[in-house]
Order: sequence, then C-alpha cells, then structure tokens
Amino acid sequence: MRFLLTCKSCGKQIPFDLKANSCKCGGTLLVTYDLERIGRTLNKENLMYRQTTMWRYAELLPVQNKDCIISLGEGWTPLIPLKDTKGILPKGKVWVKREEQNPTGSFKSRGFSAAISVANEFGIRKVAVNSNGNAASALAAYAAYAGMEAYVFVPRDCPGLIVKECVDYGANTFLVDGYIHDAGRIVKEGENEQGWYNVGTLQEPGRVEGKKTMGLEIAEQLRWKMPDVIIYPTGGGSGIIGMWNAFLQLKELGFIHGKLPRMVSVQEQGCQPLVDAIENSGNFMPQNGAVNSCPTGMRVPNPPDGQLVVSILLESGGTAVAVSSEEIVQAQRSLGKRGISASPEGAATWAALLRLIDWKFILPTDEVVLFNTSHSIKYLPWNSNSLPIVKSYREWVGCRQQIVH
Amino acid sequence: MRFLLTCKSCGKQIPFDLKANSCKCGGTLLVTYDLERIGRTLNKENLMYRQTTMWRYAELLPVQNKDCIISLGEGWTPLIPLKDTKGILPKGKVWVKREEQNPTGSFKSRGFSAAISVANEFGIRKVAVNSNGNAASALAAYAAYAGMEAYVFVPRDCPGLIVKECVDYGANTFLVDGYIHDAGRIVKEGENEQGWYNVGTLQEPGRVEGKKTMGLEIAEQLRWKMPDVIIYPTGGGSGIIGMWNAFLQLKELGFIHGKLPRMVSVQEQGCQPLVDAIENSGNFMPQNGAVNSCPTGMRVPNPPDGQLVVSILLESGGTAVAVSSEEIVQAQRSLGKRGISASPEGAATWAALLRLIDWKFILPTDEVVLFNTSHSIKYLPWNSNSLPIVKSYREWVGCRQQIVH
Repeated sequence: MRFLLTCKSCGKQIPFDLKANSCKCGGTLLVTYDLERIGRTLNKENLMYRQTTMWRYAELLPVQNKDCIISLGEGWTPLIPLKDTKGILPKGKVWVKREEQNPTGSFKSRGFSAAISVANEFGIRKVAVNSNGNAASALAAYAAYAGMEAYVFVPRDCPGLIVKECVDYGANTFLVDGYIHDAGRIVKEGENEQGWYNVGTLQEPGRVEGKKTMGLEIAEQLRWKMPDVIIYPTGGGSGIIGMWNAFLQLKELGFIHGKLPRMVSVQEQGCQPLVDAIENSGNFMPQNGAVNSCPTGMRVPNPPDGQLVVSILLESGGTAVAVSSEEIVQAQRSLGKRGISASPEGAATWAALLRLIDWKFILPTDEVVLFNTSHSIKYLPWNSNSLPIVKSYREWVGCRQQIVH
Repeated sequence: MRFLLTCKSCGKQIPFDLKANSCKCGGTLLVTYDLERIGRTLNKENLMYRQTTMWRYAELLPVQNKDCIISLGEGWTPLIPLKDTKGILPKGKVWVKREEQNPTGSFKSRGFSAAISVANEFGIRKVAVNSNGNAASALAAYAAYAGMEAYVFVPRDCPGLIVKECVDYGANTFLVDGYIHDAGRIVKEGENEQGWYNVGTLQEPGRVEGKKTMGLEIAEQLRWKMPDVIIYPTGGGSGIIGMWNAFLQLKELGFIHGKLPRMVSVQEQGCQPLVDAIENSGNFMPQNGAVNSCPTGMRVPNPPDGQLVVSILLESGGTAVAVSSEEIVQAQRSLGKRGISASPEGAATWAALLRLIDWKFILPTDEVVLFNTSHSIKYLPWNSNSLPIVKSYREWVGCRQQIVH
C-alpha cells in the first residue's frame, strides 16, 4: 500500500482506515506515504504534462482506485503577482493564491474532493459535516456529484448566500444556534443513529490531504523556489497542517531544498485562540471566553487540534496575527482597487501583511503568498430564515419533519 | 505583423488599429492572423508545457509585446463530464465548461483580459463599457489591475451583487434606465467629450479574441476531437463569433479535422432576436417589440451584429432556442443536484439540451458541451439603490457630482 496512517503525537503507524480519526493515545492521525516508491513515478518533468486539477498529485493523495475520484475541477488555481507593491515591500513580491476560483468558490473544494473520493472508495453513501459555511457548500456539491446524501450544519448567522448554495446543491441544510463546534457535536452524536459519515475537520483522513495540494501547487507554480512567508486565514487549521506536510514531503522527494516558508495564521480579533497560544509560549487552549468576531471561516474558538497548528507555526519560524473587522473591510477595499475581489478571510491576509511589515517580521526583500480563500460576494446579505434552527442533536431529530426545500 | 483586421462583409484588410471598430462598408472588423507564421511556433506538443491561462494561445491573441498582457488568471477553466446522463443521452456525453471559475466569476474575464491588454499596449488609461453586468465587473477588475480608470453602465435592474462587484473594484458605476443598447448609447456619446475608450461588444478588436479562447480550450481539452454540439447562452454573441473563428483557425493550423460542432444559441423567451431570425429564414432583425425576459446576460434585444451570429449558427448546422424562465429555474435545480451551481444563463443551456433532445436535433450518440458562463450566486438579491440612475449621456453628465463610493 502506498499510504498509511501515522499518529502525530506518539508516532504509531496503522493501516489506512476510514473510521480511524484519532490514535488510541488521543493524537491526530495523518496520512503518510511511501515516498521512495512515489519518487519512482512522480517527478518534476512528468508533472508538466499532467491534468490541471489537484489530482495531478494523485500519488500524494489517499485514493487507490482512480475511478473512485470525485472531481469537479478543483485546484491548480492561479497564483497572481500583485502590482504596485514597491511602496510596501520595496524589493519583495506579493502573490495572491486565488482559491475563490475553485468549483465551489472556495478552497474547501480541495478537502472535499479528497474526502468524498476516499469515502466513495469505501462505499459511503451518506455524509454529514459541521462548518462555518464554505465547507458545507463544498460537501453539498461533491456529495451531489457523487450521488451521496448530504447533511450540513452551520451556525445560524452563517452568510446567507453560502447557506443557499447548500440548499441548491440538494443538501439537507440546518442552522445551529451556536458555533461550529456546537454543530460538530450534533454531527458526532448522530453518527451511529443516522449512519452518516462525519466529514468534519480532522474527523477523517481526506480533507487535510486535499488541503495539502495548496502547498504542492505553490511550490510548483513558483518553480520549486519557496516563498519566504505564507499568510493564511486560519480557523480549524487543516490548511496549515496540510501545507506543512506538503513541504516536508516535497523535501523528502528532493523537489525542494533549503528553508521552508514562515507560516503565518491570521484570525479576526475576538476569536483568536491561535494568536493567544503564540502569545502564551505556544501553549494552545480553546477560547472559553466570549466570542466577538464576524461569522467567517476564521471563527473557530475550539479547533480540533489547535496545538498541532501552533506547533507548525512555531516550527516554521512563523506566527499568528489577529486583525480587526475594520482592518478587514479596509483591506477588501485595497485589494478590490488592485483588481482582486477578496473574501473577508482573504482580505485579512492583506491586513496581516501590513501589520507584519510594520512589526518588521516581514522584510523589504521578502516574497509573500496571501490566500484569498473564497469569493467575496458569498458574504453579502441573503435571508436564510426559511430554514430550521436547532441547538442539539435531539432537537434536530424532533424538527426533521419541518424541512422544506 | 502577425495580425491585421479583416471586414467580415467585404473582405477588405487593414492594419490593426484600436479605433477601427467597423469597416467603411459598415461590416464588422475581426482580427485575422498570419497562420502560416504562427504554425511555426505553435504546435500541439509545446502547448502541453504552457501556462494554464488563456494566454497559452498568445500567438492567436492580438498583443505584440508580452509585457503589456493584463492577466488575472483567466481561462483554462475545467471541462467537467456530467454524471448520470444515460437517461437523456444513452450513448452520448454531456460536458460543462465551468466559466464561473474565471477570476471575475464569469466568462467575461477572457474578453476583458484581451481587450485591456490591447488597450494597455496602445497606452489607453480610461475605459468605459455598457453591459448586462458581468462584462462591467470584468472591465472593473482588469482596469483596476492595469491601473486604468473605469466607467461602467448597466441596466437599472442588473443583479445587485454584480453591481456591487463593480463598485468594489473601484469602477465609476452607473445604472441606466433602459437596456444594454441604451447604456451603449451613453458610452458612445461620451467617447469624444470624456476621452474614454469604448470596450462595448464589437466596439474594439480584443473582446472577441478573448472569447475565442473558449473554443481553443474545448478543442485542446477534448484532445482535438470536436464535440457534436455546443450550447451557448447568447446575448451579443461575441462568444459564438469568437469560438467559430477559433475552430476555423485550428482547422487551418491542422490541429483539428472533419466536421465542426453545431453551434446552438440559447436565449430566454421574451428577448429572442436570434431565435426569431432562425425562424425567419436566417434574416436578423433587432427585437423592436416589448422585452419580457429577466435581467441576465442573454437579454440583448439589439446585438451589434446579430446577422453575423445567425450566419454562423446556420453555417455550423446549428440553431437557436428560446427557453422560459420556469425552465431555467427548473434547470438550476437539476444541475445543482448534479453538483453544478449554475447561473441562469448556464442553466438555460441545460433547458435547451432537454428541448433539443426532444426535437431530435440532438441524437442519443451526441457529445454536447454546455457553457456555465457565470456564478449562480451573483444573481441573488442585493440592493443597489444607492447608485445614481441615468437615462442619457446628458443626464449622466448632470449627475456626476452625486457619485458616492
């Protein structure tokens, strides 16, 4: 077998299994690969001939039978150089990775293309996810294409247009009176009774692997010369985990050499557990106090493995930054006038860039990659109050007959 | 020079010139190329190594100096096979060209990447367009990236989120009390007084050439084996003109052989001048009666060169179909449940497919390409009533001081 599961805490290895979402020691299980074997078929030259989706890296994704792949044309998104950045980075460069150009209008397409392909290979027909929005609409799309039944649970203040996307893809869509982890509890509690497969962050092996392809692409698109800094809007952090694994795997394959990028997580002030952990000597704690940030993908007070994310930021020489909602609005304007329509999360990376230049964390010669993770217009007003709002799994079971689509 | 302008009516050829938008005889001028010369550098093999934007076909686009190219990562969009189409096309295949994955969320990115690059090469700094929406937001984005000043004029009932995109890209944005050709009159009347460059449909040489890349890509993505039918939502028709030119050029270059696809235009009932022309022995007339269709890209009662579009449809063995707004809504649902979030225009192609199968115009063995030209969520409610509404150029000049951004 080309891949297996390895515990990030104790290092134990077990055969690849869909249901094994954490090690007996409690550690997060991640997919690891037989890179020596993979190096025999994957090289820089034959990559140039391959399909222009994230499945160009099929050897580094955990699907055995290619016929099981569920692809809607995700990945290989453009990496665009911003113009007129001499004023802020005199000798550096700023790139924007345009993840909004994925099939579901966000970077979440990648994780769900991988996760649903893996699920498909194992014969799964019913899937569920908790999400701040874009993961829900991505699950809805990929499940629809794969012919699976989908259940999605998002906070009641989730941007309405994203909720509408889920409905339009035919997913059973529910608003939750709480945060993403409250929604996650509903999915978890229903696993046995409903028989759905939980595709929540770090609940299965596929999503992190799909996100990994963002790192593979940055390396290939920059012709294997790594940028100095990557600024990434972070909620659950599977993108940070995935990209870091990408870089380590590329290093072992001999595709890249030297220093890896400093990884920077950006969060919004008012929900910033990763930033707090960096300020607290790297010790991660869920945010137990009040949450006061906008309903974006960054609002994750209690990520499933925040400690792993923080460890990667520190190992890379990176950091975490919290920016205000006003800075985000201002950054959307600045990027818009440079030709990039940025989501709040994407705009946050520009706000973080300015802050980090100010802190001299980013130097005038640095090459920096920003992530625009989603389409901006997804966040504009649309009324989703025709949908039921639930608070617990039991309440959900009670209200199912109300569903109208 | 690699390219010049040729009149589609009288065949006269003149040197490439930005300002020459129509021949002295009144015919439409289109760019033609020295294909013998281009064939020496462009071949199927070296295409495989090229960048994955529409600029992979740089030889077939009218820009001389590559440094003038204004690219936001447009083109090379996925072509996705729909699943479960055995019921409607037992031995055929249905593909969706996902144009919503362009940088501005629609196929209009292509035309404006080309047009703004051409304008850039000629030193233009101020541009204006009339549009049903997606062309306006594309102009706004490309002008912003190129550092040009942009003016956009759209019908007052243009979908609000698309209007907001224009504003967010920093364009001077105006609602017009009328249709797209009324907006076009304002742009035309202002040309001398305002000194803006008119980037309206068929008013300059770039946009058709950008749209041409859709045809080039379909051919390359299907490995140079052409589909039987292409169904394309049509307003002004520059996509039909562009794609047809693409196929003729590829034929002359020896990249494709045999029969070309039957080109089908789909319009919405209530604004269907192309459909009426087909029913009237191919004689095109602008729609002078009442317009009763929704504000989408297909609502163009008076396209600049409808006769040319109709001639191409007939030459290809194709046709034009009008579908109802109810069929469009139903088609959005059908595509959504197959994992594709379709704009009204994109959904119209699915509705047309069903109709044409019913008519036996499409056969059970046919391979068909549908175009999803834009993101579905762009069409959802957003209130753009903070913007001025004008009816004429003079009224616009009068209200300019009211502009608030």
